[in-house]
Amino acid sequence: MPETGPLLVGFDADDTLWQNEQFYRLTEEAFAALLADHCEAAVLSERLLAAERRNLALYGFGIKGFTLSMIETALELTDGALPGHVVARILEIGREMLRHPVDLLPSARETLEALSGRYRLVLITKGDLFDQERKLAASGLGPFFDGIEIVSDKTDGIYRGIFARHGTEPCRCVMIGNSLKSDILPALGAGASAIFIPHDLTWVHEHAEAPEGHPGFSQAADLSAVPGILATIG
Amino acid sequence: MPETGPLLVGFDADDTLWQNEQFYRLTEEAFAALLADHCEAAVLSERLLAAERRNLALYGFGIKGFTLSMIETALELTDGALPGHVVARILEIGREMLRHPVDLLPSARETLEALSGRYRLVLITKGDLFDQERKLAASGLGPFFDGIEIVSDKTDGIYRGIFARHGTEPCRCVMIGNSLKSDILPALGAGASAIFIPHDLTWVHEHAEAPEGHPGFSQAADLSAVPGILATIG
Repeated sequence: MPETGPLLVGFDADDTLWQNEQFYRLTEEAFAALLADHCEAAVLSERLLAAERRNLALYGFGIKGFTLSMIETALELTDGALPGHVVARILEIGREMLRHPVDLLPSARETLEALSGRYRLVLITKGDLFDQERKLAASGLGPFFDGIEIVSDKTDGIYRGIFARHGTEPCRCVMIGNSLKSDILPALGAGASAIFIPHDLTWVHEHAEAPEGHPGFSQAADLSAVPGILATIG
Repeated sequence: MPETGPLLVGFDADDTLWQNEQFYRLTEEAFAALLADHCEAAVLSERLLAAERRNLALYGFGIKGFTLSMIETALELTDGALPGHVVARILEIGREMLRHPVDLLPSARETLEALSGRYRLVLITKGDLFDQERKLAASGLGPFFDGIEIVSDKTDGIYRGIFARHGTEPCRCVMIGNSLKSDILPALGAGASAIFIPHDLTWVHEHAEAPEGHPGFSQAADLSAVPGILATIG
Protein backbone atom coordinates (compact mmCIF):
# COMPACT_ATOMS: atom_id res chain seq x y z
CA MET A 1 0.00 0.00 0.00
CA PRO A 2 1.33 3.50 -0.78
CA GLU A 3 2.59 5.66 2.10
CA THR A 4 0.82 8.72 0.78
CA GLY A 5 -1.98 9.03 -1.75
CA PRO A 6 -5.13 6.95 -1.82
CA LEU A 7 -5.51 3.80 0.28
CA LEU A 8 -9.08 2.84 -0.44
CA VAL A 9 -10.51 2.84 -3.96
CA GLY A 10 -14.26 2.38 -4.29
CA PHE A 11 -15.79 1.16 -7.53
CA ASP A 12 -19.40 1.48 -8.56
CA ALA A 13 -20.61 -1.60 -10.46
CA ASP A 14 -23.59 -0.99 -12.81
CA ASP A 15 -22.40 0.91 -15.92
CA THR A 16 -18.96 1.40 -14.35
CA LEU A 17 -17.65 -2.19 -14.38
CA TRP A 18 -20.44 -3.84 -16.37
CA GLN A 19 -23.36 -2.90 -18.62
CA ASN A 20 -26.69 -2.31 -16.88
CA GLU A 21 -28.75 0.56 -18.28
CA GLN A 22 -28.78 -0.98 -21.77
CA PHE A 23 -30.83 -3.91 -20.41
CA TYR A 24 -33.37 -1.47 -18.99
CA ARG A 25 -33.56 0.32 -22.36
CA LEU A 26 -34.07 -2.95 -24.26
CA THR A 27 -36.73 -3.91 -21.74
CA GLU A 28 -38.50 -0.59 -22.18
CA GLU A 29 -38.56 -1.17 -25.94
CA ALA A 30 -40.11 -4.61 -25.47
CA PHE A 31 -42.62 -3.10 -23.04
CA ALA A 32 -43.52 -0.33 -25.49
CA ALA A 33 -44.06 -2.87 -28.29
CA LEU A 34 -46.36 -4.85 -26.00
CA LEU A 35 -48.56 -1.80 -25.38
CA ALA A 36 -48.19 -0.21 -28.84
CA ASP A 37 -51.98 -0.43 -29.43
CA HIS A 38 -52.66 1.56 -26.28
CA CYS A 39 -50.12 4.34 -26.30
CA GLU A 40 -47.06 5.90 -27.90
CA ALA A 41 -43.60 4.83 -26.72
CA ALA A 42 -42.73 8.34 -25.49
CA VAL A 43 -45.86 8.58 -23.34
CA LEU A 44 -45.32 5.08 -21.98
CA SER A 45 -41.75 5.94 -21.07
CA GLU A 46 -42.89 9.05 -19.22
CA ARG A 47 -45.61 7.21 -17.30
CA LEU A 48 -43.22 4.39 -16.41
CA LEU A 49 -40.66 6.84 -15.06
CA ALA A 50 -43.41 8.54 -13.02
CA ALA A 51 -44.41 5.15 -11.56
CA GLU A 52 -40.79 4.31 -10.77
CA ARG A 53 -40.29 7.62 -8.99
CA ARG A 54 -43.57 7.22 -7.07
CA ASN A 55 -42.56 3.72 -5.95
CA LEU A 56 -38.90 4.39 -5.18
CA ALA A 57 -39.52 5.09 -1.48
CA LEU A 58 -41.35 1.76 -1.18
CA TYR A 59 -39.53 -0.54 -3.63
CA GLY A 60 -36.00 0.90 -3.67
CA PHE A 61 -33.81 0.30 -6.74
CA GLY A 62 -33.78 -2.91 -8.75
CA ILE A 63 -35.44 -5.13 -11.32
CA LYS A 64 -38.25 -6.58 -9.16
CA GLY A 65 -39.54 -3.10 -8.32
CA PHE A 66 -39.13 -2.11 -11.98
CA THR A 67 -41.24 -5.10 -13.03
CA LEU A 68 -43.97 -4.15 -10.55
CA SER A 69 -43.86 -0.57 -11.89
CA MET A 70 -44.24 -1.86 -15.47
CA ILE A 71 -47.36 -3.80 -14.48
CA GLU A 72 -48.77 -0.76 -12.67
CA THR A 73 -48.12 1.46 -15.71
CA ALA A 74 -49.71 -1.07 -18.07
CA LEU A 75 -52.85 -1.15 -15.86
CA GLU A 76 -53.03 2.64 -15.88
CA LEU A 77 -52.68 2.93 -19.66
CA THR A 78 -55.29 0.28 -20.42
CA ASP A 79 -57.82 1.64 -17.89
CA GLY A 80 -57.72 -1.67 -16.05
CA ALA A 81 -58.57 -3.70 -19.19
CA LEU A 82 -55.16 -5.34 -19.29
CA PRO A 83 -55.16 -8.79 -20.94
CA GLY A 84 -53.70 -11.58 -18.80
CA HIS A 85 -51.20 -12.57 -21.50
CA VAL A 86 -49.67 -9.08 -21.38
CA VAL A 87 -49.21 -9.36 -17.60
CA ALA A 88 -47.61 -12.77 -18.12
CA ARG A 89 -45.29 -11.30 -20.75
CA ILE A 90 -44.23 -8.46 -18.41
CA LEU A 91 -43.40 -11.02 -15.70
CA GLU A 92 -41.34 -12.90 -18.27
CA ILE A 93 -39.55 -9.69 -19.37
CA GLY A 94 -38.65 -9.07 -15.71
CA ARG A 95 -37.29 -12.61 -15.35
CA GLU A 96 -35.24 -12.19 -18.53
CA MET A 97 -33.64 -9.08 -17.02
CA LEU A 98 -32.80 -11.01 -13.86
CA ARG A 99 -31.08 -13.62 -15.98
CA HIS A 100 -29.23 -11.27 -18.34
CA PRO A 101 -25.55 -12.04 -18.87
CA VAL A 102 -22.93 -9.77 -17.33
CA ASP A 103 -21.00 -7.81 -19.99
CA LEU A 104 -17.86 -6.25 -18.59
CA LEU A 105 -17.01 -2.73 -19.73
CA PRO A 106 -13.68 -2.13 -21.53
CA SER A 107 -10.59 -2.43 -19.29
CA ALA A 108 -12.64 -3.40 -16.20
CA ARG A 109 -10.76 -6.61 -15.53
CA GLU A 110 -7.30 -5.24 -16.48
CA THR A 111 -7.75 -2.14 -14.32
CA LEU A 112 -8.77 -4.11 -11.22
CA GLU A 113 -5.90 -6.51 -11.85
CA ALA A 114 -3.43 -3.60 -12.00
CA LEU A 115 -4.77 -2.01 -8.79
CA SER A 116 -5.33 -5.18 -6.75
CA GLY A 117 -2.83 -5.49 -3.87
CA ARG A 118 -1.74 -1.83 -4.30
CA TYR A 119 -4.95 -0.34 -2.91
CA ARG A 120 -7.80 -1.58 -0.75
CA LEU A 121 -10.45 -2.15 -3.42
CA VAL A 122 -14.08 -1.95 -2.36
CA LEU A 123 -17.09 -2.54 -4.59
CA ILE A 124 -19.78 -0.02 -3.60
CA THR A 125 -23.01 -0.72 -5.42
CA LYS A 126 -26.61 0.33 -4.97
CA GLY A 127 -29.63 -1.83 -5.60
CA ASP A 128 -31.10 -5.22 -5.02
CA LEU A 129 -28.85 -7.36 -2.80
CA PHE A 130 -29.70 -10.65 -4.47
CA ASP A 131 -29.30 -9.38 -8.04
CA GLN A 132 -26.07 -7.49 -7.34
CA GLU A 133 -24.56 -10.63 -5.77
CA ARG A 134 -25.59 -12.63 -8.83
CA LYS A 135 -23.93 -10.13 -11.17
CA LEU A 136 -20.77 -9.95 -9.09
CA ALA A 137 -20.49 -13.74 -9.11
CA ALA A 138 -21.11 -13.87 -12.87
CA SER A 139 -18.57 -11.08 -13.52
CA GLY A 140 -15.66 -13.05 -12.07
CA LEU A 141 -14.38 -9.78 -10.55
CA GLY A 142 -15.12 -10.73 -6.92
CA PRO A 143 -11.59 -11.92 -6.07
CA PHE A 144 -10.09 -8.48 -6.85
CA PHE A 145 -12.10 -6.83 -4.06
CA ASP A 146 -11.16 -6.54 -0.40
CA GLY A 147 -14.71 -5.55 0.48
CA ILE A 148 -18.20 -5.65 -1.03
CA GLU A 149 -20.73 -3.02 0.03
CA ILE A 150 -24.22 -3.40 -1.39
CA VAL A 151 -26.23 -0.44 -0.18
CA SER A 152 -29.82 0.72 -0.61
CA ASP A 153 -28.79 4.29 -1.46
CA LYS A 154 -25.61 6.35 -1.94
CA THR A 155 -25.48 9.45 0.25
CA ASP A 156 -22.66 11.38 1.94
CA GLY A 157 -23.50 9.57 5.19
CA ILE A 158 -23.48 6.12 3.58
CA TYR A 159 -20.00 6.80 2.10
CA ARG A 160 -18.72 8.11 5.46
CA GLY A 161 -19.98 4.91 7.12
CA ILE A 162 -18.23 2.70 4.55
CA PHE A 163 -14.91 4.57 4.85
CA ALA A 164 -15.13 4.34 8.68
CA ARG A 165 -15.94 0.61 8.55
CA HIS A 166 -12.79 0.09 6.48
CA GLY A 167 -10.76 2.25 8.88
CA THR A 168 -9.68 4.76 6.22
CA GLU A 169 -9.78 8.56 6.49
CA PRO A 170 -12.03 9.97 3.74
CA CYS A 171 -9.12 12.11 2.43
CA ARG A 172 -7.36 8.85 1.49
CA CYS A 173 -10.39 7.39 -0.31
CA VAL A 174 -11.30 7.68 -4.00
CA MET A 175 -14.67 6.74 -5.50
CA ILE A 176 -14.99 5.79 -9.18
CA GLY A 177 -18.28 5.65 -11.06
CA ASN A 178 -20.57 6.73 -13.89
CA SER A 179 -23.22 8.52 -11.86
CA LEU A 180 -22.58 12.10 -10.77
CA LYS A 181 -25.56 11.89 -8.42
CA SER A 182 -24.72 8.58 -6.72
CA ASP A 183 -20.98 8.04 -7.10
CA ILE A 184 -19.31 11.44 -7.44
CA LEU A 185 -21.18 14.17 -5.53
CA PRO A 186 -21.85 12.22 -2.29
CA ALA A 187 -18.28 10.78 -2.23
CA LEU A 188 -16.87 14.31 -2.59
CA GLY A 189 -19.39 15.40 0.08
CA ALA A 190 -17.98 12.75 2.41
CA GLY A 191 -14.47 14.14 1.90
CA ALA A 192 -13.10 11.65 -0.62
CA SER A 193 -11.82 12.24 -4.15
CA ALA A 194 -13.85 11.00 -7.09
CA ILE A 195 -13.21 9.94 -10.68
CA PHE A 196 -16.18 10.30 -13.02
CA ILE A 197 -16.30 7.89 -15.95
CA PRO A 198 -19.37 8.80 -18.00
CA HIS A 199 -21.37 6.04 -19.66
CA ASP A 200 -23.32 6.65 -22.89
CA LEU A 201 -26.50 5.56 -21.18
CA THR A 202 -27.33 6.92 -17.76
CA TRP A 203 -30.77 6.72 -16.15
CA VAL A 204 -32.39 10.17 -16.12
CA HIS A 205 -32.91 9.80 -12.34
CA GLU A 206 -29.09 9.78 -11.94
CA HIS A 207 -28.40 13.04 -13.80
CA ALA A 208 -26.66 15.93 -11.99
CA GLU A 209 -24.25 18.80 -12.67
CA ALA A 210 -20.52 17.94 -12.84
CA PRO A 211 -18.60 19.61 -9.97
CA GLU A 212 -16.08 21.23 -12.35
CA GLY A 213 -13.26 22.91 -10.47
CA HIS A 214 -13.65 20.85 -7.28
CA PRO A 215 -10.08 19.87 -6.30
CA GLY A 216 -11.04 16.22 -5.65
CA PHE A 217 -12.85 15.77 -8.97
CA SER A 218 -11.38 14.07 -12.06
CA GLN A 219 -12.96 12.73 -15.20
CA ALA A 220 -11.78 9.98 -17.54
CA ALA A 221 -13.04 8.45 -20.77
CA ASP A 222 -12.68 4.89 -19.54
CA LEU A 223 -11.27 2.72 -16.76
CA SER A 224 -7.83 2.34 -18.35
CA ALA A 225 -6.97 5.90 -17.21
CA VAL A 226 -7.67 5.12 -13.56
CA PRO A 227 -4.23 3.84 -12.42
CA GLY A 228 -2.57 6.95 -13.85
CA ILE A 229 -5.03 9.31 -12.14
CA LEU A 230 -4.71 7.50 -8.81
CA ALA A 231 -0.92 7.96 -8.97
CA THR A 232 -1.42 11.76 -9.15
CA ILE A 233 -3.87 11.94 -6.20
CA GLY A 234 -2.32 12.60 -2.86
CA MET B 1 -16.73 -7.65 27.22
CA PRO B 2 -16.35 -10.98 29.10
CA GLU B 3 -12.90 -12.63 29.24
CA THR B 4 -14.36 -16.04 28.48
CA GLY B 5 -17.74 -17.02 27.07
CA PRO B 6 -19.36 -15.45 24.04
CA LEU B 7 -18.08 -12.21 22.51
CA LEU B 8 -20.34 -11.85 19.50
CA VAL B 9 -24.09 -12.42 19.70
CA GLY B 10 -25.97 -12.54 16.41
CA PHE B 11 -29.70 -11.86 16.28
CA ASP B 12 -32.04 -12.82 13.49
CA ALA B 13 -34.72 -10.13 12.91
CA ASP B 14 -37.95 -11.40 11.27
CA ASP B 15 -40.00 -13.38 13.83
CA THR B 16 -37.11 -13.21 16.32
CA LEU B 17 -37.13 -9.49 17.17
CA TRP B 18 -40.30 -8.47 15.35
CA GLN B 19 -43.38 -10.03 13.72
CA ASN B 20 -43.08 -10.95 10.05
CA GLU B 21 -44.75 -14.19 9.05
CA GLN B 22 -48.14 -13.01 10.35
CA PHE B 23 -48.17 -10.31 7.65
CA TYR B 24 -47.57 -12.94 4.98
CA ARG B 25 -50.42 -15.07 6.40
CA LEU B 26 -52.82 -12.11 6.43
CA THR B 27 -51.77 -11.32 2.89
CA GLU B 28 -52.41 -14.88 1.79
CA GLU B 29 -55.91 -14.67 3.27
CA ALA B 30 -56.62 -11.46 1.34
CA PHE B 31 -55.20 -13.08 -1.81
CA ALA B 32 -57.38 -16.19 -1.33
CA ALA B 33 -60.50 -14.02 -0.86
CA LEU B 34 -59.65 -12.19 -4.09
CA LEU B 35 -59.55 -15.44 -6.06
CA ALA B 36 -62.28 -17.29 -4.13
CA ASP B 37 -64.39 -17.68 -7.31
CA HIS B 38 -61.53 -19.44 -9.08
CA CYS B 39 -60.10 -21.81 -6.51
CA GLU B 40 -60.07 -23.04 -2.93
CA ALA B 41 -57.77 -21.39 -0.41
CA ALA B 42 -55.78 -24.59 0.20
CA VAL B 43 -55.08 -25.09 -3.51
CA LEU B 44 -54.14 -21.44 -3.93
CA SER B 45 -51.75 -21.66 -1.00
CA GLU B 46 -50.09 -24.74 -2.52
CA ARG B 47 -49.73 -23.13 -5.96
CA LEU B 48 -48.37 -19.92 -4.45
CA LEU B 49 -45.75 -21.84 -2.47
CA ALA B 50 -44.78 -23.71 -5.64
CA ALA B 51 -44.35 -20.38 -7.49
CA GLU B 52 -42.30 -18.93 -4.62
CA ARG B 53 -39.99 -21.97 -4.61
CA ARG B 54 -39.66 -21.88 -8.40
CA ASN B 55 -38.77 -18.18 -8.30
CA LEU B 56 -36.48 -18.23 -5.26
CA ALA B 57 -33.30 -18.66 -7.31
CA LEU B 58 -34.26 -15.62 -9.40
CA TYR B 59 -36.06 -13.32 -6.94
CA GLY B 60 -34.44 -14.22 -3.60
CA PHE B 61 -36.42 -13.59 -0.40
CA GLY B 62 -38.71 -10.63 0.17
CA ILE B 63 -42.03 -8.93 -0.46
CA LYS B 64 -41.42 -7.71 -4.03
CA GLY B 65 -40.67 -11.24 -5.22
CA PHE B 66 -43.65 -12.50 -3.22
CA THR B 67 -45.91 -9.97 -4.96
CA LEU B 68 -44.64 -11.07 -8.38
CA SER B 69 -45.28 -14.72 -7.39
CA MET B 70 -48.86 -13.83 -6.34
CA ILE B 71 -49.51 -12.28 -9.76
CA GLU B 72 -48.00 -15.31 -11.50
CA THR B 73 -50.16 -17.70 -9.43
CA ALA B 74 -53.29 -15.66 -10.11
CA LEU B 75 -52.57 -15.82 -13.87
CA GLU B 76 -52.14 -19.59 -13.67
CA LEU B 77 -55.36 -20.18 -11.75
CA THR B 78 -57.49 -18.01 -14.04
CA ASP B 79 -56.05 -19.47 -17.24
CA GLY B 80 -54.85 -16.04 -18.24
CA ALA B 81 -58.31 -14.45 -17.87
CA LEU B 82 -57.24 -12.36 -14.91
CA PRO B 83 -59.23 -9.11 -14.53
CA GLY B 84 -57.14 -5.95 -14.37
CA HIS B 85 -58.71 -4.87 -11.09
CA VAL B 86 -57.44 -8.07 -9.45
CA VAL B 87 -53.89 -7.38 -10.64
CA ALA B 88 -54.22 -3.83 -9.29
CA ARG B 89 -55.43 -5.19 -5.95
CA ILE B 90 -52.48 -7.61 -5.72
CA LEU B 91 -50.07 -4.72 -6.35
CA GLU B 92 -51.83 -2.80 -3.58
CA ILE B 93 -51.62 -5.80 -1.20
CA GLY B 94 -47.87 -5.94 -1.86
CA ARG B 95 -47.51 -2.23 -1.13
CA GLU B 96 -49.49 -2.62 2.09
CA MET B 97 -47.02 -5.31 3.20
CA LEU B 98 -44.10 -2.99 2.44
CA ARG B 99 -45.71 -0.35 4.65
CA HIS B 100 -46.74 -2.62 7.52
CA PRO B 101 -45.83 -1.37 11.00
CA VAL B 102 -43.05 -3.08 12.93
CA ASP B 103 -44.39 -4.97 15.97
CA LEU B 104 -41.60 -5.93 18.36
CA LEU B 105 -41.78 -9.38 19.94
CA PRO B 106 -41.97 -9.65 23.76
CA SER B 107 -38.74 -8.69 25.60
CA ALA B 108 -36.92 -7.74 22.34
CA ARG B 109 -36.02 -4.24 23.47
CA GLU B 110 -35.28 -5.18 27.12
CA THR B 111 -33.05 -8.09 26.08
CA LEU B 112 -30.96 -6.00 23.69
CA GLU B 113 -30.71 -3.26 26.30
CA ALA B 114 -29.41 -5.79 28.86
CA LEU B 115 -26.83 -7.25 26.45
CA SER B 116 -25.67 -4.03 24.79
CA GLY B 117 -22.13 -3.08 25.82
CA ARG B 118 -21.51 -6.55 27.31
CA TYR B 119 -21.35 -8.37 23.97
CA ARG B 120 -20.76 -7.36 20.37
CA LEU B 121 -24.32 -7.43 19.05
CA VAL B 122 -24.80 -8.06 15.34
CA LEU B 123 -28.12 -8.12 13.51
CA ILE B 124 -27.95 -10.92 10.90
CA THR B 125 -31.01 -10.88 8.69
CA LYS B 126 -31.90 -12.39 5.35
CA GLY B 127 -34.02 -10.77 2.69
CA ASP B 128 -34.59 -7.60 0.80
CA LEU B 129 -31.99 -4.95 1.70
CA PHE B 130 -34.33 -1.99 1.34
CA ASP B 131 -37.21 -3.52 3.30
CA GLN B 132 -34.98 -4.84 6.10
CA GLU B 133 -33.42 -1.39 6.51
CA ARG B 134 -36.89 0.15 6.68
CA LYS B 135 -37.96 -2.28 9.38
CA LEU B 136 -34.77 -1.81 11.39
CA ALA B 137 -35.24 1.97 11.30
CA ALA B 138 -38.90 1.64 12.33
CA SER B 139 -38.03 -0.79 15.14
CA GLY B 140 -35.84 1.71 16.96
CA LEU B 141 -33.47 -1.17 17.78
CA GLY B 142 -30.63 -0.01 15.50
CA PRO B 143 -28.60 1.77 18.22
CA PHE B 144 -28.19 -1.48 20.21
CA PHE B 145 -26.25 -3.13 17.40
CA ASP B 146 -22.51 -2.93 16.71
CA GLY B 147 -23.02 -4.34 13.23
CA ILE B 148 -25.81 -4.89 10.71
CA GLU B 149 -25.49 -7.77 8.26
CA ILE B 150 -28.25 -8.03 5.66
CA VAL B 151 -27.54 -11.14 3.61
CA SER B 152 -29.22 -12.84 0.67
CA ASP B 153 -29.04 -16.29 2.30
CA LYS B 154 -27.88 -17.90 5.55
CA THR B 155 -25.39 -20.70 5.05
CA ASP B 156 -22.44 -22.04 7.07
CA GLY B 157 -20.11 -20.06 4.77
CA ILE B 158 -22.06 -16.82 5.15
CA TYR B 159 -21.88 -17.12 8.97
CA ARG B 160 -18.15 -17.90 8.83
CA GLY B 161 -17.63 -14.79 6.69
CA ILE B 162 -19.57 -12.59 9.14
CA PHE B 163 -17.67 -13.92 12.18
CA ALA B 164 -14.35 -13.36 10.37
CA ARG B 165 -15.34 -9.83 9.33
CA HIS B 166 -15.99 -9.03 12.99
CA GLY B 167 -12.68 -10.62 14.01
CA THR B 168 -14.27 -13.19 16.33
CA GLU B 169 -13.52 -16.93 16.49
CA PRO B 170 -16.71 -18.92 15.74
CA CYS B 171 -16.39 -20.71 19.12
CA ARG B 172 -17.01 -17.34 20.80
CA CYS B 173 -20.08 -16.52 18.69
CA VAL B 174 -23.73 -17.28 19.46
CA MET B 175 -26.59 -17.00 16.96
CA ILE B 176 -30.18 -16.46 18.12
CA GLY B 177 -33.23 -17.00 15.93
CA ASN B 178 -36.55 -18.66 15.18
CA SER B 179 -35.53 -20.60 12.08
CA LEU B 180 -33.76 -23.93 12.55
CA LYS B 181 -32.89 -23.95 8.85
CA SER B 182 -31.49 -20.41 8.59
CA ASP B 183 -30.39 -19.37 12.08
CA ILE B 184 -29.54 -22.49 14.05
CA LEU B 185 -28.16 -25.27 11.81
CA PRO B 186 -25.80 -23.13 9.66
CA ALA B 187 -24.51 -21.19 12.71
CA LEU B 188 -23.73 -24.51 14.46
CA GLY B 189 -22.19 -25.70 11.18
CA ALA B 190 -19.91 -22.65 11.21
CA GLY B 191 -18.71 -23.55 14.72
CA ALA B 192 -20.83 -21.13 16.78
CA SER B 193 -23.40 -21.88 19.49
CA ALA B 194 -27.07 -21.22 18.78
CA ILE B 195 -30.19 -20.43 20.76
CA PHE B 196 -33.45 -21.45 19.10
CA ILE B 197 -36.50 -19.37 20.00
CA PRO B 198 -39.47 -20.91 18.19
CA HIS B 199 -42.20 -18.64 16.82
CA ASP B 200 -45.80 -19.84 16.48
CA LEU B 201 -45.72 -19.07 12.77
CA THR B 202 -42.76 -20.20 10.71
CA TRP B 203 -42.75 -20.35 6.92
CA VAL B 204 -42.87 -23.98 5.75
CA HIS B 205 -39.74 -23.34 3.67
CA GLU B 206 -37.82 -22.72 6.93
CA HIS B 207 -38.74 -26.01 8.65
CA ALA B 208 -35.97 -28.43 9.74
CA GLU B 209 -35.16 -30.96 12.48
CA ALA B 210 -33.94 -29.58 15.82
CA PRO B 211 -30.32 -30.67 16.50
CA GLU B 212 -31.19 -32.14 19.95
CA GLY B 213 -28.09 -33.19 21.86
CA HIS B 214 -25.71 -30.89 19.96
CA PRO B 215 -23.50 -29.33 22.66
CA GLY B 216 -23.85 -25.82 21.18
CA PHE B 217 -27.65 -25.96 20.92
CA SER B 218 -30.07 -24.36 23.39
CA GLN B 219 -33.76 -23.55 23.16
CA ALA B 220 -35.80 -20.91 24.94
CA ALA B 221 -39.45 -19.90 25.02
CA ASP B 222 -38.72 -16.22 24.49
CA LEU B 223 -35.95 -13.62 24.40
CA SER B 224 -36.05 -12.90 28.14
CA ALA B 225 -34.16 -16.17 28.76
CA VAL B 226 -31.25 -15.16 26.52
CA PRO B 227 -29.02 -13.27 29.03
CA GLY B 228 -29.18 -16.24 31.43
CA ILE B 229 -28.30 -18.76 28.70
CA LEU B 230 -25.42 -16.61 27.42
CA ALA B 231 -23.96 -16.53 30.95
CA THR B 232 -23.75 -20.35 30.92
CA ILE B 233 -22.07 -20.61 27.48
CA GLY B 234 -18.33 -20.65 27.37
